Amino acid sequence: MASIANNLKRPEPKALATALEALTARFGNRLVTSQAVREQHGHTTTWLANQPPDGVVFAQETADIQDVVRICAANKVPVIAFGTGTSLEGQVNAPAGGICIDMRDMNQILEVHSEDLDCVIQPGVTRKALNENLRDQGLFFPIDPGADASLGGMASTRASGTNAVRYGTMRDNVLALKVVRADGEIIKTGTRAKKSSAGYDLTHLFVGAEGTLGIISELTIKLRGIPENMAAASCSFATVAGACQATILAIQTGIPVARIELLNEAQVRACNAYSKLTLPETPLLLLEFHGSEAEVAEQSRNFHEIALECGGGDFSWTTKPEDRTKLWQARHDAYWSVKSMRPGSDVAATDVCVPISKLAECVAATEEDLARLGLLAPIVGHVGDGNFHCSMVCDRNDANEVARAEDFMHRLAQRAQAMGGTCTGEHGIGQGKQKYMQAELGSEALDAMRALKKALDPDNIFNPGKILPQA
Amino acid sequence: MASIANNLKRPEPKALATALEALTARFGNRLVTSQAVREQHGHTTTWLANQPPDGVVFAQETADIQDVVRICAANKVPVIAFGTGTSLEGQVNAPAGGICIDMRDMNQILEVHSEDLDCVIQPGVTRKALNENLRDQGLFFPIDPGADASLGGMASTRASGTNAVRYGTMRDNVLALKVVRADGEIIKTGTRAKKSSAGYDLTHLFVGAEGTLGIISELTIKLRGIPENMAAASCSFATVAGACQATILAIQTGIPVARIELLNEAQVRACNAYSKLTLPETPLLLLEFHGSEAEVAEQSRNFHEIALECGGGDFSWTTKPEDRTKLWQARHDAYWSVKSMRPGSDVAATDVCVPISKLAECVAATEEDLARLGLLAPIVGHVGDGNFHCSMVCDRNDANEVARAEDFMHRLAQRAQAMGGTCTGEHGIGQGKQKYMQAELGSEALDAMRALKKALDPDNIFNPGKILPQA
Repeated sequence: MASIANNLKRPEPKALATALEALTARFGNRLVTSQAVREQHGHTTTWLANQPPDGVVFAQETADIQDVVRICAANKVPVIAFGTGTSLEGQVNAPAGGICIDMRDMNQILEVHSEDLDCVIQPGVTRKALNENLRDQGLFFPIDPGADASLGGMASTRASGTNAVRYGTMRDNVLALKVVRADGEIIKTGTRAKKSSAGYDLTHLFVGAEGTLGIISELTIKLRGIPENMAAASCSFATVAGACQATILAIQTGIPVARIELLNEAQVRACNAYSKLTLPETPLLLLEFHGSEAEVAEQSRNFHEIALECGGGDFSWTTKPEDRTKLWQARHDAYWSVKSMRPGSDVAATDVCVPISKLAECVAATEEDLARLGLLAPIVGHVGDGNFHCSMVCDRNDANEVARAEDFMHRLAQRAQAMGGTCTGEHGIGQGKQKYMQAELGSEALDAMRALKKALDPDNIFNPGKILPQA
Repeated sequence: MASIANNLKRPEPKALATALEALTARFGNRLVTSQAVREQHGHTTTWLANQPPDGVVFAQETADIQDVVRICAANKVPVIAFGTGTSLEGQVNAPAGGICIDMRDMNQILEVHSEDLDCVIQPGVTRKALNENLRDQGLFFPIDPGADASLGGMASTRASGTNAVRYGTMRDNVLALKVVRADGEIIKTGTRAKKSSAGYDLTHLFVGAEGTLGIISELTIKLRGIPENMAAASCSFATVAGACQATILAIQTGIPVARIELLNEAQVRACNAYSKLTLPETPLLLLEFHGSEAEVAEQSRNFHEIALECGGGDFSWTTKPEDRTKLWQARHDAYWSVKSMRPGSDVAATDVCVPISKLAECVAATEEDLARLGLLAPIVGHVGDGNFHCSMVCDRNDANEVARAEDFMHRLAQRAQAMGGTCTGEHGIGQGKQKYMQAELGSEALDAMRALKKALDPDNIFNPGKILPQA
């Protein structure tokens, strides 16, 4: 199990005891310090070692967050926000201990403005609960990272997912935030106006900050009307290059695809085995189109033409919900199909994002590297954005395999960066990817980030040990 | 002529002299200190008093910007970036003097990546020059603020305009920046990857910062394929409320309008007079649709149905370029038609943005206020975003009229804020709107902005006296 170099100072034992005492007085049994609950709140879906916090407070309202922050700040004890624990790079680990604020009970949808296509929510609202609630009003929130994550967490890691090619990422869909700052007061970062030029963009400074600059206590997010029609399509390609070329042409000619996902050969093979499908074991593109009946038909037709030009084979298309589900089955089962490849092993997901023109080259080189290192890591890509994931099958207890997997991850991040891309398109930096920040953005950008961190959190109480590599 | 309270300290005369000497040695006749050139570089299209810088350097390459910043920083002399001088809230005024960097010669398009739909440019490239250059490749940059502004300036004020309803604002279309920081070194804020979760969003901190945190020396921006077809439509409405309701329904049902502009009755009347048109003198919506032939036809048809439901009258629609131009004539001439209403007077534009559900109410109340105060200020709105402009006809030398106009502007900003909106959707804060920041975002947000400013520009050399009201 990989552990992260940790030179962070834990709080003074006396200060921690004082904080825990004050928290007990304030929150009673909503402060939990049992080993199991603490470990659960340090949980990360990687092979990073678990670093549990010293206690977990289950917040019910904004005032709870404010009081936790005030008590912790007074004692210089770290504060870590926790949504659903689905982050992938150690974002909720507590390398310096401290208090975790669990947001699961802050799950109220406070206002829905259907005419304005926005709503105001608490940070613990999950994506599925939100869409469930909005459905009757013909509205939906388009960001779909796969997991049923909380919106506060999705904002904090700047999440995106399959729909981003059409609807953008969390960056594009958060209008305003309320954020509890280091003295417990609340920063309001914007209004419900759809656009604004009023000063520094605080909203987008907190989006993606992984809770290191303050704790999000409320979000105003953009909504969309549920599309009149959805169509799904699938198309096999002889090569990853063909599939990528079709993607590039689709984006370039402005086909407003709602989703366009690549499954590489290894992933298709895993899906065939797991879901008893009979897909050709070659790279596969899965698409979704949103719009009027005529629009989705035209979009599909246009894409089919492009696919033929790029060597696409079997093309299927449907607008029937049950057939759509069947067509996308392989994608829905991707994670579980990888899980089942070697039962008992872990599956650790990593992601990079490159300019789309480099995608085919990057995926091909990555496949070669996997073969060379003898590793199992099927690839699924949000290819319209140049973003792809490797789902690494790895036994945490096999030091040799972990070492090879880490070597692979290093090379993957470096490969993406060398192609003008980023070491993470949507998972964030957390603990796992700090080592790539310098190469990606340079020391001047890191200086600026450190200066911002110091300006807003001078005592480093908010999620210490994340994003910024130690200087 | 309104002047802004100015407690800013000018540089020490000796320090300024030292800086000017060093700049002369470095730049020769590319440093200009003539009165005319200095005044031209403090130019703002408002009635704010001109505050010229002490000198203007015409930069040709990034190293020039770096050296100006280094020389100025060493002497604590302000540095102000200048694009084309089309900002509207005093952004290029020099209330504490200092050196203006004119970017007009930094107008190179450095890289065009047509497959990735992005390009890398210098900050002095103007919108029209860029689109001219891209046309042959079937690409365009969609942000259109009206003026032929520079891209560096557009990024700095977070500009948008008529196309924003479909393509977003500068915030949504800047991928990465290079920014010269206070010691002359360069911060790289991102990569060419279409999305990233790698640390704090520095890119969007500098977008909209009006040159107060650093000087943009290079931009990587998103491009689009030129749409296959463009259609224009126009529709008259009996009331602003009807026009706004049609807009809301169009957005809500997901019609991807590329532009949707409201001209109020006063604006239509001005256009009829100026351009010899015979439009019904009632509120008018002008629309543009982008897409395939079938798509634009369907979008227009769908909008027409909505318009009929909302009391829309005359509806015209065309895809022929010359007819499109004719249909949009009133919009293209809007500024000049207002200019001609009272020759010799100035026209000062202001903007606010409200949640779209409040737009009709906000425009109606604004029209009443204009009538009550006896002011001429036709209204044009980017109504798909809830954003509208009043073009105030005002004689700078008529103190009474200036006072009434200022009273009106105050009430307009307050009205928008009271409706959950912002005092500026796209013009920025500059000098003119600092007084509204506190009411809009509160003191905690201002504290945060001041802390960020201090973190990145501790000596306050970058465009002092802008955005942040003096504490």
